[in-house]
Amino acid sequence: MKAVLDDPTIISLAAGFTANEILPLAPVQSIVNTIIDQPARGQNALQYGSTIGRNRLRQSILTRISEQDQLTLGPNGWDESQVAVTTGSQELLYLLGEILLDPDDYVLLELPTYFVFMGILHGLGAKGHSIPTSPDGLDIDALDRTLKVMEERGTLERLKFFYLVSYHQNPTGYTLPFENKRAVHERMDRVSQKLGRPVFIIEDAAYRDLGFHGDAPRSLLSIDQGKDLVVYTSTFCKPFSSGLKLGYGILPRLLADHLLRQKGNLDFGSSNFTQAIIEEALENGAYQEQAQVCSRRYQEKMEIMAEALQQQLPSDVSWQKPGGGLYIWATLPSHIPTSMNSPFFDACLRRKVLYVPGDLCCFPDEDNPSIPHSSIRLSFGAASPEQITEGIARLGQAYQDISSASRSASMIPGTF
Amino acid sequence: MKAVLDDPTIISLAAGFTANEILPLAPVQSIVNTIIDQPARGQNALQYGSTIGRNRLRQSILTRISEQDQLTLGPNGWDESQVAVTTGSQELLYLLGEILLDPDDYVLLELPTYFVFMGILHGLGAKGHSIPTSPDGLDIDALDRTLKVMEERGTLERLKFFYLVSYHQNPTGYTLPFENKRAVHERMDRVSQKLGRPVFIIEDAAYRDLGFHGDAPRSLLSIDQGKDLVVYTSTFCKPFSSGLKLGYGILPRLLADHLLRQKGNLDFGSSNFTQAIIEEALENGAYQEQAQVCSRRYQEKMEIMAEALQQQLPSDVSWQKPGGGLYIWATLPSHIPTSMNSPFFDACLRRKVLYVPGDLCCFPDEDNPSIPHSSIRLSFGAASPEQITEGIARLGQAYQDISSASRSASMIPGTF
Repeated sequence: MKAVLDDPTIISLAAGFTANEILPLAPVQSIVNTIIDQPARGQNALQYGSTIGRNRLRQSILTRISEQDQLTLGPNGWDESQVAVTTGSQELLYLLGEILLDPDDYVLLELPTYFVFMGILHGLGAKGHSIPTSPDGLDIDALDRTLKVMEERGTLERLKFFYLVSYHQNPTGYTLPFENKRAVHERMDRVSQKLGRPVFIIEDAAYRDLGFHGDAPRSLLSIDQGKDLVVYTSTFCKPFSSGLKLGYGILPRLLADHLLRQKGNLDFGSSNFTQAIIEEALENGAYQEQAQVCSRRYQEKMEIMAEALQQQLPSDVSWQKPGGGLYIWATLPSHIPTSMNSPFFDACLRRKVLYVPGDLCCFPDEDNPSIPHSSIRLSFGAASPEQITEGIARLGQAYQDISSASRSASMIPGTF
Repeated sequence: MKAVLDDPTIISLAAGFTANEILPLAPVQSIVNTIIDQPARGQNALQYGSTIGRNRLRQSILTRISEQDQLTLGPNGWDESQVAVTTGSQELLYLLGEILLDPDDYVLLELPTYFVFMGILHGLGAKGHSIPTSPDGLDIDALDRTLKVMEERGTLERLKFFYLVSYHQNPTGYTLPFENKRAVHERMDRVSQKLGRPVFIIEDAAYRDLGFHGDAPRSLLSIDQGKDLVVYTSTFCKPFSSGLKLGYGILPRLLADHLLRQKGNLDFGSSNFTQAIIEEALENGAYQEQAQVCSRRYQEKMEIMAEALQQQLPSDVSWQKPGGGLYIWATLPSHIPTSMNSPFFDACLRRKVLYVPGDLCCFPDEDNPSIPHSSIRLSFGAASPEQITEGIARLGQAYQDISSASRSASMIPGTF
């Protein structure tokens, strides 16, 4: 496997990397020169910052989200003490896990969900239940059944949060409809009141700024006004530059205080220099422009991948075009497993193309047998248009390899 | 207290910030332009990196330390898989704590020691014993007594590591003599053999590159060859730019693997852009030059602080010039406590000067009553020469205030 991965001719549609060809070289260079040409400003950027992040950056973040989501600011609403800047949104998710979870605590997640976060949850000894999601949204009936079962078993009192990737989700590309957000918030609010403590909703909006059509629903923050149940997390990595490695969160006050203490232990602040760059990019419009450049580019690449899927894979492979983000989620017929030890994965390795198996995108949940064994996540983020076309062609060939092997095997019973 | 801290006329000799006036504006600007002017290189720097850090950066780090400490490289020695780049050395210390410690595990620390690390240890539920250190070095007899007591109590088997700040220590400015390092290594090696698992020595060399005289002893790595007991941690924050927020560690192989997994959960890599800047600075010599600029400047400031202490404080306040770093450790007569609720701290607040109380630099250890109640840490890093002179003058006035109050009180029994 390692030999295959080191092979430069392999095409990876697995990695969640961003597109090299549109990285904001000129804007970053110009911003760094602007900052350093003013000595006091340059000194400020090259000096330690504060644990929670630069003030102006946090204000810009809050202003931007408050406009998108019609949030009330000030004493009766949000203020910048609730905004934290972190080393990518990953550090924020990690800190939230550390603050909120004890071993054997429960979380709710989408099925499928962002698989890297599960590493954190495993490390903390958390248990979870998965709620199926689809292009139409989250299965709210399944959520209600799960909450009922948890209550009957006495595990509801250990429920700490529901983690949702709400825009152009990793791995499916689906966007959670606003009505679903209302329904989830209503349930978590009810459970919170029952338990006498908040059961949070962590809304991971990492792909929000990578929409293709500009019609995304408002965030859960817009529903939460005053309830203090919603943690909103996002990142500047995907829509600007992953090399600057900055993310942020908007948190309920109590949680912001805990986070600040824990981040004080962890690193007492992310790079102040890269924060100064993003701060200027938000103020001079370079960020917003770059996010649009990214969205247009990813839409082009998505269309190229969709066209190739249309041509290269049979109609029993189902998928749909996402409205944003970096991923297409495709589901093969249920008799073709896609896991890392499956014949299809092997065939893809032989054809030199990589994908993320669907079963990796699913938190182990003994109650839920509907693991996406036959699904795959395909990323159109980092690969070039030629690689995307060729990669999907190879995927189609691998599919043919498996089908013929399966047919041959069925003619010679006992050999397959 | 907050009102005082927000007062712009207060002089802080407490903060461990670095000197604004010598931050490497021109070198960083030139390096960023060099990197971005080459599109492929710029794209690489603005893209995600790897979890453990940039390869060339890690190679440069290892080459540099191997030359300083005469380390064997290659299959029979160290290689770059043992070098990890982190968001400041703080993230590395945090990760080491998480990997190595379970609640009620024991650590050994110097008395006094770096107080921020204690926040991590507390958070992890660790217990500790403190070994007194002085300008002459660590009290090895005290170490032996502590190890004996731990063995008798059955707590030795829970000992996980000894944490040492070995060069121009925070808070004392003392440098650990090489013979002390040998003695510590010999003890930890013996305990490791007894327990059948490594008891590590974490050597925090954060201030190594800020020496004033260029005669620092070799690190513990030079003693460890092949034993795999030493974790060496350091930072680019103090000798180059704290705004870039990068540190690094050289670790035993087994520990490097664990660290990589945990850092994969935490952030899957520190900013690749700031790493690219430091990588170039090490290769073109800008780092080495800047470290010398810093050392010279801190030596000047240290001399200014020493001169002011000589003039402004009575001879019953003891201190000595450090050979590097950012701090002078001063000890007042034992009847003058310096803690945050002490009359002296209050007098300093009234006189508008801040220091770090000695008792904060000490891990709570029920066996050890020798808490530095009357010591203070004074930083000459961030303050200007004028602020240093004025700050020490205020300290002297506060000392006078306390002494006169004490004299008045002794004349009117019961009122003080």
